[in-house]
Amino acid sequence: MTDERAIRFGILGCANIAIKLCKAIAKAPNATLQAIGSRSLEKAAAFVVEHGLPEAVRVYGSYEEVVGDDEVDAIYIPLPTALHVTWAVRTAERGKHVLLEKPVAMSVSELDRILEACEANGVQFMDGTMWVHHPRTAKMKEALSDEKRFGQLKWIHTCLTYNPGPEFMKHSIRTKPDLDGLGALGDTGWYCIRAILWAMNYELPKSVLAFPGAILNEAGVIISCGSSLHWEDGRSATFHCSFLTYISFDITALGTKGCLRLNDFTLPFDENFGFGTFHEASELDYGKIEPGRWCPKPNEHVVETEFPQDVWMVKEFAELVKKVKYFEMKPEKEWAILSRKTQLVLDAVKESIEKGYKPVEIVN
Amino acid sequence: MTDERAIRFGILGCANIAIKLCKAIAKAPNATLQAIGSRSLEKAAAFVVEHGLPEAVRVYGSYEEVVGDDEVDAIYIPLPTALHVTWAVRTAERGKHVLLEKPVAMSVSELDRILEACEANGVQFMDGTMWVHHPRTAKMKEALSDEKRFGQLKWIHTCLTYNPGPEFMKHSIRTKPDLDGLGALGDTGWYCIRAILWAMNYELPKSVLAFPGAILNEAGVIISCGSSLHWEDGRSATFHCSFLTYISFDITALGTKGCLRLNDFTLPFDENFGFGTFHEASELDYGKIEPGRWCPKPNEHVVETEFPQDVWMVKEFAELVKKVKYFEMKPEKEWAILSRKTQLVLDAVKESIEKGYKPVEIVN
Repeated sequence: MTDERAIRFGILGCANIAIKLCKAIAKAPNATLQAIGSRSLEKAAAFVVEHGLPEAVRVYGSYEEVVGDDEVDAIYIPLPTALHVTWAVRTAERGKHVLLEKPVAMSVSELDRILEACEANGVQFMDGTMWVHHPRTAKMKEALSDEKRFGQLKWIHTCLTYNPGPEFMKHSIRTKPDLDGLGALGDTGWYCIRAILWAMNYELPKSVLAFPGAILNEAGVIISCGSSLHWEDGRSATFHCSFLTYISFDITALGTKGCLRLNDFTLPFDENFGFGTFHEASELDYGKIEPGRWCPKPNEHVVETEFPQDVWMVKEFAELVKKVKYFEMKPEKEWAILSRKTQLVLDAVKESIEKGYKPVEIVN
Repeated sequence: MTDERAIRFGILGCANIAIKLCKAIAKAPNATLQAIGSRSLEKAAAFVVEHGLPEAVRVYGSYEEVVGDDEVDAIYIPLPTALHVTWAVRTAERGKHVLLEKPVAMSVSELDRILEACEANGVQFMDGTMWVHHPRTAKMKEALSDEKRFGQLKWIHTCLTYNPGPEFMKHSIRTKPDLDGLGALGDTGWYCIRAILWAMNYELPKSVLAFPGAILNEAGVIISCGSSLHWEDGRSATFHCSFLTYISFDITALGTKGCLRLNDFTLPFDENFGFGTFHEASELDYGKIEPGRWCPKPNEHVVETEFPQDVWMVKEFAELVKKVKYFEMKPEKEWAILSRKTQLVLDAVKESIEKGYKPVEIVN
């Protein structure tokens, strides 16, 4: 770490994902970990020791102390979703920048309170969706935008599932209505919706219709669901998210002339080896295929990356914070807009389920 | 051809798919091409010459003559869907076995007339869904049934699209209401539905709900649509079929412990090279994955095949016909049951679209 202007991060809570972020902050050239707070001082201290964090990291027995530390510039908030609105607003009100884990809020109205606080206090906002920061994502966007190879995007399907097992289902905060009350829709559906919006250049769908048969646990939290999404011009999308099946991280995007696929979109198979891949086929390749092959085998594209995607995220966020802190620039609002669109669609899917699988219009 | 008991095929019409079947019949050790008929004698004669068929093949200027030829055992019917009921019934009534191109009928009530005729006349029935005959399909079924590796199937998504272009959209029989009036749902959706039923051990769903935003041409024929399907026990499925985007032939099946995928299910990439592949990942592989790989790369399974899948289909059909013809066995009814289940679901999806995307119960 040689950057004297490195952004100093505080972290609220000792969630598993915080371990990943601590490592990412350590690797990012423009970031440093300043403080970590838990509801128990012992827990925070143990976390620092267990994960070999620098001794200089300040340890607090409350979130309030982290937010109040004058030598903290930005706060990473991996708390349960229900606590986001309280702690993101307090963070902003103390003039600190907000890196907020997804799903960003229980609803778009809660998110709006967070974004208003960020706006009022001139702080940067970004959500914790890591995969969009991987260089592979930019390359895939290039592929989708290549009119000659891909044509026009007509349809996209995304799927994100994992099977965390019975202990998780009983005890995890992700299945509790008063903690991560959006369940699988918030945890994995967030990524599916974000990927669809990303592919659609963040144009909002006109409406959504959830698939009948969403599965809820006894407390009413979604553990498996999906939806179709519809745009005015005839484009459409579907997604499926669940805590009930083996790992799938799939995107299939179909254009008039080409097809793009990957099965590891939120966490590249080979990321720790410095690259990510995706598969793409195009009618331009027809000439290349061998006789009798009606359906050409897709091409594998390999995209190298200097850092894992979590480091890219921290680096990009810290860069924006530096602009505000050192160059008196206004916070970049684009990230807040993308989070809000994702949450709008997520809310609509939830509403469609709650209304017994009726179509829900998206009103921005 | 050394089999003196080879089944003698007649073909009705000179559709493109008939070329494939002529070649398959030539390659199948238990089948021989006896006759081909078209509405024009010239057209049938030209077809025989153009595709290098044996001179012994009888050429007729009507379908009636093929059906009436006493030296024809079985008829392959690749006519437009709207003509199936007429010609399949006539074929059965002349005591000839029926290999009927998919979609088998415009509706299940039409199909029932065909199946009743087959039953009444003691002839074998099979539809022209080729991929289910590929040895890869049996291997995939084994993988899906492996409780240790795959767990229980919870969800499946299939997708079959191609973009035949503006000339097709204007002139093809597949976009005409009075010919292949089921459009993309009949042409490519048939395969999607069949694949879903295949994976679900042919248990019928309780209900379907078509995705809003199906696209119809000016004549009201479906050119793009999809649906979700729901089983009593919480299993579900989705599919998407269309004439509007680049080629995709995808199956993704998710179990509690594993995932199976392939992107060439109706026509294997490598079929002409004697094999087919599919990809499978399982939680059993967790031990094998390298550090930091949360999401294991799927394994590729390679399945060798002596014949392409169209030859397997002809061979299996001819084998069943031989049992009826030479061994006085009753026709095998299983294939008719599978066709009927596929058509039932297809009809329900069409009804859901026609009712403005309302759920439709499946009543067997």
